[in-house]
Amino acid sequence: MMAGYVQDTILLFGDSITQLSTGPGGLAQQLSDVYQRKLDVLNRGFSGYNSRWAIPVFKNVFAKKSEQPNLPKVKLLTIWYGANDAVEPGGPQYVPLEEYSQNLSTLIQLVKSPSSEWYSPETRIIVLTPPPINSAQWAEFLKTLELGLDKSDRTVERTKTYADAVKEVAKKEGVAVVDVFELLWSAAGEREKALERFLTDGLHLKVEGYKLVYDALIESISQNFPELHYDKLQTAYPDWKDLSTENYAGLVKEPLVKRH
Amino acid sequence: MMAGYVQDTILLFGDSITQLSTGPGGLAQQLSDVYQRKLDVLNRGFSGYNSRWAIPVFKNVFAKKSEQPNLPKVKLLTIWYGANDAVEPGGPQYVPLEEYSQNLSTLIQLVKSPSSEWYSPETRIIVLTPPPINSAQWAEFLKTLELGLDKSDRTVERTKTYADAVKEVAKKEGVAVVDVFELLWSAAGEREKALERFLTDGLHLKVEGYKLVYDALIESISQNFPELHYDKLQTAYPDWKDLSTENYAGLVKEPLVKRH
Repeated sequence: MMAGYVQDTILLFGDSITQLSTGPGGLAQQLSDVYQRKLDVLNRGFSGYNSRWAIPVFKNVFAKKSEQPNLPKVKLLTIWYGANDAVEPGGPQYVPLEEYSQNLSTLIQLVKSPSSEWYSPETRIIVLTPPPINSAQWAEFLKTLELGLDKSDRTVERTKTYADAVKEVAKKEGVAVVDVFELLWSAAGEREKALERFLTDGLHLKVEGYKLVYDALIESISQNFPELHYDKLQTAYPDWKDLSTENYAGLVKEPLVKRH
Repeated sequence: MMAGYVQDTILLFGDSITQLSTGPGGLAQQLSDVYQRKLDVLNRGFSGYNSRWAIPVFKNVFAKKSEQPNLPKVKLLTIWYGANDAVEPGGPQYVPLEEYSQNLSTLIQLVKSPSSEWYSPETRIIVLTPPPINSAQWAEFLKTLELGLDKSDRTVERTKTYADAVKEVAKKEGVAVVDVFELLWSAAGEREKALERFLTDGLHLKVEGYKLVYDALIESISQNFPELHYDKLQTAYPDWKDLSTENYAGLVKEPLVKRH
């Protein structure tokens, strides 16, 4: 029986768009709030990383089969890469489209394949597509870095091809997908300029952007893994109103972490 | 070598004032944000709980010595109870002042005593005093519950005696303390009415209240455990700019979680 403080988890694996989501209104913050006393939300976002660099990192941040019995279970894993893979060829973060698809399949298979050292059949997986880029806004941001970069190293068209690849991989691997690209692109009336409503710098999400992603993720959980919706999970430890000086001693005996 | 995803942690142990702090601007949210890729912030707040009920819960949420080798280390533990203990005698949550002090000492000794099953010498401890109550505001809130409660079951004077007890226990046990009561009380000019600036309902904290607590907690970390200040901790995994297609393979070999 594991210690209660290693409550089961939602593992958010991705790049800066995941890493920065602990801010107010961010994806990790909103999930932490609704999953209070139910699941811990672990932010495993790595700014600037692409799907190629993500693989060795994942092998270290995700527990091996041999370690899993002593550790919290990852009930839900989100994989959200592509925003960096999709830079123009030549950029240090660039990953060719075919390799990107292969890398996503590899990450999924590390968890889903019974022959994998990281096999975790209890872990549900949702992959997310990269958000659309506002190249004009991003170019403006790059200028402020004063690195001599005067144009965007990403285009909405190229990122779209990476978003489409995620959907193909999700279909092939049989995992759920949240199409962040389509979500923001359609909400912006398919106009890059209008993406300013959702993006801070043309690449990263504002609260308005995270809100759409959060709602879509919860909807995906409801549809694909309803048992993991926060309303379906029991709160760890009894409600205080069910305790009293008379019965609290029972706390000592009964398993305090009530798992669903 | 443990899996990287069980990053070391800050464990926030307390009542609803801790539990609700995952909201935007809350204590857990702000800590999660500044400790990105450094320490995981685990919210172990239990709404309505007092220090008596906290003891059996703590024995379950904090890993035993025998379990600790396989689990994330708790680098920092905050203990924040008293807001419920301090209700009027007769209320189901009431804990007499002397027992409250003893319960806090017990919680601290569970971690600090070498003879304890939960002994964790690496864990730094900060205790927090309960915030001052705005009894008029709290009475108004109780009325909205329509339970026939027309007066506050807490007073600022009584809560003050519990806050003072925390400071005595901290001194006796040799742990750090953040005096939330004094912090908010002085910021409010020692006027209950003025506490509305910091309290949502007379008992729970607004963003303005959590901001004061967060700043004081970081200041306490700087003074008492400088090695745990987020600026002193190395980020897990290299900065992406130090990676490249040429050297990323090195990631596979080198230990990816760089611990301080």
